[in-house]
Amino acid sequence: MSVVWFNGAIVEGPLSLDPRDRGLLLGDGLFETILVLNKTALWRHMHLARMEGSANALGLAFDRARVDAAVDALLAVSTASRQALRVTLTRGAGPRGLAGNGGPSTLLASLEPLDPQSLFEPVTLARSLIRRSAASPAARHKTLSYIDNIAAAREAAARGAGDALMLNTDGAVACSTIANVFLLRDRMLITPARDQAILTGVMRQALLAAAHRLGFKSEERRVALEELHMADAVFLTNSLRIVRTVKSLDGKPLATGDLTPLIAALCDAARLQCGRDPRLI
Amino acid sequence: MSVVWFNGAIVEGPLSLDPRDRGLLLGDGLFETILVLNKTALWRHMHLARMEGSANALGLAFDRARVDAAVDALLAVSTASRQALRVTLTRGAGPRGLAGNGGPSTLLASLEPLDPQSLFEPVTLARSLIRRSAASPAARHKTLSYIDNIAAAREAAARGAGDALMLNTDGAVACSTIANVFLLRDRMLITPARDQAILTGVMRQALLAAAHRLGFKSEERRVALEELHMADAVFLTNSLRIVRTVKSLDGKPLATGDLTPLIAALCDAARLQCGRDPRLI
Repeated sequence: MSVVWFNGAIVEGPLSLDPRDRGLLLGDGLFETILVLNKTALWRHMHLARMEGSANALGLAFDRARVDAAVDALLAVSTASRQALRVTLTRGAGPRGLAGNGGPSTLLASLEPLDPQSLFEPVTLARSLIRRSAASPAARHKTLSYIDNIAAAREAAARGAGDALMLNTDGAVACSTIANVFLLRDRMLITPARDQAILTGVMRQALLAAAHRLGFKSEERRVALEELHMADAVFLTNSLRIVRTVKSLDGKPLATGDLTPLIAALCDAARLQCGRDPRLI
Repeated sequence: MSVVWFNGAIVEGPLSLDPRDRGLLLGDGLFETILVLNKTALWRHMHLARMEGSANALGLAFDRARVDAAVDALLAVSTASRQALRVTLTRGAGPRGLAGNGGPSTLLASLEPLDPQSLFEPVTLARSLIRRSAASPAARHKTLSYIDNIAAAREAAARGAGDALMLNTDGAVACSTIANVFLLRDRMLITPARDQAILTGVMRQALLAAAHRLGFKSEERRVALEELHMADAVFLTNSLRIVRTVKSLDGKPLATGDLTPLIAALCDAARLQCGRDPRLI
């Protein structure tokens, strides 16, 4: 059962959308997907702050109170213990032409069930030929213009892999289509830096903070593809699935070192947010 | 007055759109914009063939008869002498996840008035810092994921220019946010090749064919930025505005050699398509 909030209220059935909405016509907008546990939207502030920062960068109007109202309305009717909350913001309807400002922004939010198996589930990766460019807003911001990621994900699925590993135009590791990539080596966490054409994930930031508290060192830098094969473990982070070990890349097995302390640290951080019941994660 | 056709019929007011439509949520779809003169959709077959080719490449269902029905329905009610017809195809509604197939595709088409001044109107360009990657479906296909072009167009507008000149990740000339770039030098037409991260425009193809008939030679190849300042003329081509001279780049004037024979050749080609009244262009 999914619940949808649209421009001010929970709605049933189809949306009434202006045919000139720039989200639909031009991918002109942003989104966030937030893990909801026990009626709590985890890392909510980090998600909405990221959306606000990207909205400012792209010249999209962002009304935090309106977004908070949408999130609160959905949390109030949340029933399952684990759900995915997606917030979608578009530049609204406008006349033809790319540079226009659009009308009032369109705000859509939805709450959907989340397969509990998908959290922490190990994954296989296939390398994509689609390269991410650091000089591209589509690569840096979580915009509605997701076709590169879609094409990479479909290509990976066709090859039997769970997700695609995307490199940047420099040939270095960037991220998967839906997650950041981390390497663990000698208690050192290594992840592509912000300038490597990655989307800066909320879970990436949460993990770096949690790992620091546990005494892991971390490096954010250029990561060569070969390094994945030399790591003690390679894993993905994202907001809905937290941490997932990468079992193999293009069919070649990768080392799957113990991530238990990192996962425990993230779960602790999440428990602090979602309250009393530690069994929820 | 704009007219909208949606999933089988002309509709008034807002669309009834599934909130899980992948066009709205993920920019997962394609579009074409077609010049309509005197109830004729110019270069119609080339537009729809391009959309079909891109749909096949991206794994989107494409039903030519359905698209033709949408175009025909709008042409039947076309009243103005010059209009813009846009066809938008999305992968339809689907469950969460990038790699999914979506449901039946969503087809939207609209007919809008076109400012007659915009045809052939000279334009100023500002160079964008956003680079186009040849290894990106968003750069090669006319997808709904247009945020890079939008950001570049907004940046150019903020600097007082009419459009942005986009380079590729190799630093060579690619295209503008809505048009292909041509150089004219000693009766030689030069334009970035298909592998230069360009969208292969319908008007680009039509112009190359028309120029060949007129005895112009042409080269499709890598084009260095410096070459723009050495050309006899620089111009943009796209389907709605046909040909526009580029007057300046980043405020520096460019040579504006005579494009009359090329424009006349394109007008001849268009007149052949739109029938009896040559004053229409």
